[in-house]
Amino acid sequence: MTTSYPRIAGQSLERLAALSDGIFAVALTLLVLDLRVPVGEVTGQHPVWTAQGRSADRAAWEVLVEVGPHFLPFVMSFMTLGIFWIGQQTQLNHFARTDRHLTWIHLAFLALVCLMPFSTNFVGEYPTARIPFVTYWLNLLLLGLVLMASLRYAARHGMFKTDDVLGALRRRIVFYQACYAGAMALSLVDTYVSMGALVLLQLLSALAPPIPPFDRY
Amino acid sequence: MTTSYPRIAGQSLERLAALSDGIFAVALTLLVLDLRVPVGEVTGQHPVWTAQGRSADRAAWEVLVEVGPHFLPFVMSFMTLGIFWIGQQTQLNHFARTDRHLTWIHLAFLALVCLMPFSTNFVGEYPTARIPFVTYWLNLLLLGLVLMASLRYAARHGMFKTDDVLGALRRRIVFYQACYAGAMALSLVDTYVSMGALVLLQLLSALAPPIPPFDRY
Amino acid sequence: MTTSYPRIAGQSLERLAALSDGIFAVALTLLVLDLRVPVGEVTGQHPVWTAQGRSADRAAWEVLVEVGPHFLPFVMSFMTLGIFWIGQQTQLNHFARTDRHLTWIHLAFLALVCLMPFSTNFVGEYPTARIPFVTYWLNLLLLGLVLMASLRYAARHGMFKTDDVLGALRRRIVFYQACYAGAMALSLVDTYVSMGALVLLQLLSALAPPIPPFDRY
Amino acid sequence: MTTSYPRIAGQSLERLAALSDGIFAVALTLLVLDLRVPVGEVTGQHPVWTAQGRSADRAAWEVLVEVGPHFLPFVMSFMTLGIFWIGQQTQLNHFARTDRHLTWIHLAFLALVCLMPFSTNFVGEYPTARIPFVTYWLNLLLLGLVLMASLRYAARHGMFKTDDVLGALRRRIVFYQACYAGAMALSLVDTYVSMGALVLLQLLSALAPPIPPFDRY
Repeated sequence: MTTSYPRIAGQSLERLAALSDGIFAVALTLLVLDLRVPVGEVTGQHPVWTAQGRSADRAAWEVLVEVGPHFLPFVMSFMTLGIFWIGQQTQLNHFARTDRHLTWIHLAFLALVCLMPFSTNFVGEYPTARIPFVTYWLNLLLLGLVLMASLRYAARHGMFKTDDVLGALRRRIVFYQACYAGAMALSLVDTYVSMGALVLLQLLSALAPPIPPFDRY
Repeated sequence: MTTSYPRIAGQSLERLAALSDGIFAVALTLLVLDLRVPVGEVTGQHPVWTAQGRSADRAAWEVLVEVGPHFLPFVMSFMTLGIFWIGQQTQLNHFARTDRHLTWIHLAFLALVCLMPFSTNFVGEYPTARIPFVTYWLNLLLLGLVLMASLRYAARHGMFKTDDVLGALRRRIVFYQACYAGAMALSLVDTYVSMGALVLLQLLSALAPPIPPFDRY
Repeated sequence: MTTSYPRIAGQSLERLAALSDGIFAVALTLLVLDLRVPVGEVTGQHPVWTAQGRSADRAAWEVLVEVGPHFLPFVMSFMTLGIFWIGQQTQLNHFARTDRHLTWIHLAFLALVCLMPFSTNFVGEYPTARIPFVTYWLNLLLLGLVLMASLRYAARHGMFKTDDVLGALRRRIVFYQACYAGAMALSLVDTYVSMGALVLLQLLSALAPPIPPFDRY
Repeated sequence: MTTSYPRIAGQSLERLAALSDGIFAVALTLLVLDLRVPVGEVTGQHPVWTAQGRSADRAAWEVLVEVGPHFLPFVMSFMTLGIFWIGQQTQLNHFARTDRHLTWIHLAFLALVCLMPFSTNFVGEYPTARIPFVTYWLNLLLLGLVLMASLRYAARHGMFKTDDVLGALRRRIVFYQACYAGAMALSLVDTYVSMGALVLLQLLSALAPPIPPFDRY
């Protein structure tokens, strides 16, 4: 009997975890590339209590004013990627093994992670338009759906170390995807309200305060 | 008897795997840098049912139209790199140890991985020309040849944990390289047909559906 | 009794360490992107003792003169990130486990790490202004505060392997943050003196010479 | 007795190896960013045997001609970084433990690794000038000196698992640094000859052929 490639390929959970950490690390750092400092002019050195000393700061202040609005999308997407990193990590921690299909499901997940800097940038450049929001939300939705597919595949093929975590992992995804859909619906009226709702949701997800129902998901 | 450097150098499979994951992570994320959002203009905030609200989306729509065609090369190369990541991972999983020569074979493999964003970009910018396709195909061919050299070297020097996987790993490379060569030949007539054939092959490789002969490789 | 997601999420110290190494690696390498070589013109090949041979070096020399001043911020920030990498590593090495809250504290830490290339660049472009210095110092201060929050949380929830390291870790942060604040105060008079003091502090931190009180922190 | 921070900081060999792999991975991939494809124009689709089909390739050919000369510095630096990655890996594999000083020596090593894409780019843009070559060589020299300092420190503080590898590691560095210095001296006459000698040396280092004295180092 000969071994076939599909039976032996992609079976390392450690390698999958390492690739995931690498891709999340690069994607998280790329979010910052949007915060770019324009080339400055070096002026003379004067103490801060002189007029020349204060005037040197005027150009620097303009940089902060210009870069400032890009901080919000940076924070929002850093939190989003953090949430999904923890979500995927929690799944992988509870898998006993992987196979080629499950590995490909997670490669699809990582491709969506790679798209997050693009979606973030799109919202950052067109904050009052609807299409970037829908793009961003689709990115979130697909991330959730792929994680759901991973759960379903792993459950069907007996890949969980213990079965008692499956329900919690599944409810978590459904609950937050419902919240995301609600936050997105608000963008039809006002995109800034929608962005605020999304940041609030992510804060709740990150802080996990003892407020029902957020303390359970 | 003194120890010589070549005997003690490059013997860590773990470090080789970690470097590979890092390089694949960066290369996969760099593919997305091609999807760039042009600087936008922030307009006022209006609900979507007003004329002003809809007009704000026109500029955003143009961005999607412009960026859209770059999604196909992104998906194609993400899948290609995923396939080769799994291919290399499967080899390393079955090696009992490595030495300096095998490490250098894999460094050559990683250099070719680093070139994939360039090849992808080349095809993306000149989708109807033949030279970018030949470049892309040479990249694929060399990746396959280096993996083959790795197999041959490891087999000759007894580095496999078990010998029964060698045949499957070798047949897999030959089969898909033959398919790639066929897909590339189509580009002489029509480059889009060739790109479509390549994406189809990669889908078959990723999904491993129960269709002979694709279920065996 | 059902398991809830917050109880099972984000519990891998290994994954947290791996993500941290990835983010530090990318952030450290991004610091260098500031050292950019302008596109050059290829001239003929002449030995160094001829006039043409020497003139070929004039353009190259100008590149060094232009890029030179950016080396100091590169070195300063590389050392800063190195110091905080060791600081976080030392904490993680002494934790017995993590949970979702501690993981989020460290994600906040990593977000601040991602901002360091921006702060560095800001100081590099406006070296005589005060605002970039305050930004840089705020970045350092927040990194210290978040590491302090991590210590406090881990201590309260019994996550340390041994309790005897807590004091040393805490004193170290307080001591160096006090030094940083002092170095920053100098920038009100002269920003270059302030930068020099900061580099000196970081050298003391890196070299840990037997000079009291620096040998104890 | 209280524990002091310098005694407990920076003691993880695993974290040092992981950070090193991350930095090498990013630095190796950044080398390719120099191979940039200019934005192209999409023309119609025609078979290769028609005149229009062939004319579509003219623009693509010009890209290859333009990008071509950058392949040599890419290959040269990829090999250089590969050599030093193996060199550092071999050291770390033979260390039983690390401390804060040894960790800082390796952080200095990694800072020099981060500078390699800059040095490479400098040579690539001014291939006939001497200053970029001296810069590149200084980078190589410092990398060697820091690895030597690491060996010396580890030997003095009993950090080697076994003592019998120290001599081989040291001789290797001295031998190749002498070769590098020789290759660099050639650049005073002709920079291309010098580049060729460097690539040849790196091939000998990578392939380790049975040619004395290269088979011993």
